[in-house]
Amino acid sequence: MARLDNITDYLIAPQPSATGLTRAVTGTDQNGTKIDLNVVEERPLTIYLNSQEIVTAMTIGDYPEYLALGFLRNQGMLRNGEVIKGVDYDDELSVVVVRTDGQTTYEDKLKKKTRTSGCAVGTVFGDMMEGLDDVTLAPTPVKTSDLYTLAAKINRTPSLYLEAGAIHGTVLCQGDRPLVYMEDVGRHNAVDKIAGWMLSEGVTADDKVLYTTGRLTSEMVIKTALMGIPVLASRSGFTAWGVEIAQQVGLTLIGRMKGQRFVCLAGEDRLIRDADPSQIENEPPKSGRKGSK
Amino acid sequence: MARLDNITDYLIAPQPSATGLTRAVTGTDQNGTKIDLNVVEERPLTIYLNSQEIVTAMTIGDYPEYLALGFLRNQGMLRNGEVIKGVDYDDELSVVVVRTDGQTTYEDKLKKKTRTSGCAVGTVFGDMMEGLDDVTLAPTPVKTSDLYTLAAKINRTPSLYLEAGAIHGTVLCQGDRPLVYMEDVGRHNAVDKIAGWMLSEGVTADDKVLYTTGRLTSEMVIKTALMGIPVLASRSGFTAWGVEIAQQVGLTLIGRMKGQRFVCLAGEDRLIRDADPSQIENEPPKSGRKGSK
Repeated sequence: MARLDNITDYLIAPQPSATGLTRAVTGTDQNGTKIDLNVVEERPLTIYLNSQEIVTAMTIGDYPEYLALGFLRNQGMLRNGEVIKGVDYDDELSVVVVRTDGQTTYEDKLKKKTRTSGCAVGTVFGDMMEGLDDVTLAPTPVKTSDLYTLAAKINRTPSLYLEAGAIHGTVLCQGDRPLVYMEDVGRHNAVDKIAGWMLSEGVTADDKVLYTTGRLTSEMVIKTALMGIPVLASRSGFTAWGVEIAQQVGLTLIGRMKGQRFVCLAGEDRLIRDADPSQIENEPPKSGRKGSK
Repeated sequence: MARLDNITDYLIAPQPSATGLTRAVTGTDQNGTKIDLNVVEERPLTIYLNSQEIVTAMTIGDYPEYLALGFLRNQGMLRNGEVIKGVDYDDELSVVVVRTDGQTTYEDKLKKKTRTSGCAVGTVFGDMMEGLDDVTLAPTPVKTSDLYTLAAKINRTPSLYLEAGAIHGTVLCQGDRPLVYMEDVGRHNAVDKIAGWMLSEGVTADDKVLYTTGRLTSEMVIKTALMGIPVLASRSGFTAWGVEIAQQVGLTLIGRMKGQRFVCLAGEDRLIRDADPSQIENEPPKSGRKGSK
C-alpha cells in the first residue's frame, strides 16, 4: 500500500524515525548473508503514585507521563475527578511520579494481582470486574463506512508496527478520523498511553472508537469500557470472556477486520451498515505487522 | 497446507476439540449475516506456593498443574533441586497449590513487580536479570534442516492457534521432532507450561529448541535461558533488549522464520546451515494465526 505520509488527521501520530525508539542490529539470514535490521527498544520505567512505588513497566519510552497517568487510571488507582497536581518524569532514573492530593486505595489493589492474558503485562490490580457495574456506554452510532476508512488510514500510516515489528498499536478515533496513535511493545501500554492523553487533555470518550492491532481479550474489553469508549475494533480475534464482557456491558465489539470483512460479536445495535462491503478494497497480502503473523 | 492429523512425534499435542477450551459464539459479519465462531476460553487460576497466594493467571485451563509449577520455577520461586511434595488442583475453586519443603524467598520477589511487554502477563517478580549470570547454555549444534522440518510440522499441526485465533503456541523440540506443544491466551503461560512439564518429567534442556509463535522480547529470552534451553526460534520479530540479552547469555536467537527465510541475531555459532534455503517451500498465504496478523 502506498504510504500516506501527510495524513493530517492525527493529533499524535507514530514517529518511527524518532531517536531511541529503534536500534540497528546485525544478524545473518538463511543464506548466511549479513543483514541489518531495525528492532524496537524496550526499557523499564518505574511508576510512582505519590510516594508509593506501583510497578515497573517495560516500554518503548516515548510518552512516559501519559503511560503513568493512563496506567494508574485504568487500574482504578485514580478516582474520577481526582486532581492531578503534577506528573514528573526523570529520564536518568527512568522514574515517573504522578502527584495527587487524595488518599488512594492502592494498597488494597496491590494485594490482588491478576495475571491476565494480554500482550504487555496485564497486571490488573484489584478486582478485574470492579467498576464495570457502574459503566454505561453512550449509544453513539458507528458507521461501517467510517470503520473501513479508519482501517485504511491506519494501515497506511508509517509506524514502528509496520517498520520494525514486535510492537502493538492502538488508535483513538472519532468518526472517520484517527486522532491519537500510540504504539508500544505491549498493547496494554498503548491503551494506557491513550487513557493518559485523554485524562490529560480532558477529552470525552462517548463519541470515540478504539482501534487496536491486538487481540480482543477480557482485559482489553474491560479497559476500553472503563475508559468510557463504546466501540472497540481490531484486526485480530477474540476470547470468549472478552465477548461475554462486551455483551454484558453493552460495548460494540468488532474483530477480524481485514479488507471488507469483519465480525461483530457485541453491541450490534450501534452499527450502521452504510457501506457496501463488496466495494471495499481487499488488503494486499503484505499488510500487517512486519516480522510476525 | 494439508493438516497432518497423525504426526506421532508429539508427547503432548494441542487438543483443539477438547471440551471447554473454546466456546461457540454468534455474531454478524460485514453483510449483516449471522456467523458462528469458535473463540478461545480464558479463565482465572490462582496459584499458591504452600500457603502463600502468588498470582491469579488467566489461562485456557488445560494444564493447571504444569502452569503453576512452570510459573513458579520461571519466576525463580523454586530453587534448583527443590523437592516438590505435590501439586494439588481444585477445579471448583480454580486454585492450584504447589507444595514444597523449603522456605522460599517469595516475599522479597513479590515486592519487586515488573510489568513487561510480553503477551500474557509478564509479571516478573524479582530482578528480571537475576539468575542469568549463573546461566551457561550448552553448545549443542542446531541444523537448519531440522529447523525447517520443525516449522513445517508445527504449522501443519491442528491447534487452537490455527482454529480459533487469539492464542499463542510454544513448542519444545528436539532435533527435527516437536515434543510438547502448549498453547494459551498468553505466550508466557505456554512457556511456563512447558517449564512445568520439564520439571515434572525431569527432562533435560541442553539438546532442546524452543519454538514460539510470539515475539522475541526480553522476557521470552530470559525465560528460555533460565530454562537452560540454548535455542529460541519464532515466526515473529525481536526487541533490541531481547537480542542483547541473547547475545550476552550466548543463546541462539532466530526470528522472522517464514518459509525459507529467517534471521539469526545471536548465537550464530550453533547454527549448521546444512539445508539449501531455495529448496524450502514457501508458505501458502493463509499460514499463521487465524483472525489476526
